[in-house]
Amino acid sequence: MTFAATVLTLYPEMFPGPLGASIAGRALREERWSLEAVQIRDFATDRHRSVDDTPAGGGAGMVLRADVVAAALDSVADDRPVLAMTPRGAPLTQDRVRALASGPGATILCGRFEGFDERLFQARAIEEVSIGDYVLSGGEMGALVLLDACVRLIPGVMGAASSGDEESFESGLLEYPHYTRPYEWEGRTIPEVLRSGDHARIAAWRKSQAETDTRLRRPDLWERHEGARVQSPSGARRRQDD
Amino acid sequence: MTFAATVLTLYPEMFPGPLGASIAGRALREERWSLEAVQIRDFATDRHRSVDDTPAGGGAGMVLRADVVAAALDSVADDRPVLAMTPRGAPLTQDRVRALASGPGATILCGRFEGFDERLFQARAIEEVSIGDYVLSGGEMGALVLLDACVRLIPGVMGAASSGDEESFESGLLEYPHYTRPYEWEGRTIPEVLRSGDHARIAAWRKSQAETDTRLRRPDLWERHEGARVQSPSGARRRQDD
Repeated sequence: MTFAATVLTLYPEMFPGPLGASIAGRALREERWSLEAVQIRDFATDRHRSVDDTPAGGGAGMVLRADVVAAALDSVADDRPVLAMTPRGAPLTQDRVRALASGPGATILCGRFEGFDERLFQARAIEEVSIGDYVLSGGEMGALVLLDACVRLIPGVMGAASSGDEESFESGLLEYPHYTRPYEWEGRTIPEVLRSGDHARIAAWRKSQAETDTRLRRPDLWERHEGARVQSPSGARRRQDD
Repeated sequence: MTFAATVLTLYPEMFPGPLGASIAGRALREERWSLEAVQIRDFATDRHRSVDDTPAGGGAGMVLRADVVAAALDSVADDRPVLAMTPRGAPLTQDRVRALASGPGATILCGRFEGFDERLFQARAIEEVSIGDYVLSGGEMGALVLLDACVRLIPGVMGAASSGDEESFESGLLEYPHYTRPYEWEGRTIPEVLRSGDHARIAAWRKSQAETDTRLRRPDLWERHEGARVQSPSGARRRQDD
């Protein structure tokens, strides 16, 4: 089964864009995943090909019409999850990325202007997703980010060397800091423990660094991590073994 | 003054990419901002043009060398802030975006592989930024997102119609839901209040919807919002006026 992505957008020319280069681009050429961009405007019904209209109740900007977007969505409906990239959505997590990457793919709706007519979300099964608490010019950047995160987890894409198991967020922590040659640079040396050859000591140092950095840089992540350890039986067992 | 972006990357061909289309693309052609992509590999010093090496202490993947990246960075050093896109960074916020957009621009470092040698962050003034708690194949997607968010706020880019003032996160809340024509769609009608013509009632309804949606969808944002209202004198005053 190939991971199949369909993006509904007013700017199909943005795809594959950066997903055509590097890891995702190679995987696309190797047909480990597929990408289709559908022009929402093709589903407009008037002679001006309108996709938007002024907000009911007044205000700046334009709102994407429910009828036009639903027609575009219905044209590609299948068993894949449908996601809409919007700042009102649930924050994207690595867990959600991993679940999506192990599924059949995704249909991704990209908003523009002030967003979608809210009735769209009442009338269709659509998961609203946000990539972060900032405002973008449209959902296209979110779709690119979501697909990049998913594609690298498709089996065979990253290669055996990088399993992704030790990365940031996979354990609920930030990743530990990295060092490489040269040994000394501008008077700064690589921490001695990393040159010790003692694998247990190195693992313990990295774990401690990941914990300290998470606690200092991201107290929100740290709290959630500690909460999960206390609550889950396996977490508690691990804690006793420490 | 023009907002000047310089991106240090191993994949300069990803730029401008999606930033060459739509709002950001038009603004780029109108020279309201500028974009330069610098190939980090051009600053390698050996004949293989190496930019990375194996992690000290062992482990999967490769680490970007501090000396090569610092040389690339030093070649473009000026008074603009330097940001590195990394999952260990501070979460990007709309406040940070707004501050960057009103400044001279940004130099943006894009990581790849396992990330940068940590000594880079000790030896140079670099702000580590994360666009969200998920893992991407590199910092390039983060740079695209950051620049899209900044560019739309540059004066003149969005036009007078969309000031951005009522958007999600600008008030610490999610934005209220939108509706537009047709009045009835699949048996669902636009809320009557939005057709009342009563601007005060419409504003009150939108505020209430924004608050309810934020409380239900994003309790984390809601808590911060309420905390800020209680703590800041202006927020407290506003509360009394409600």
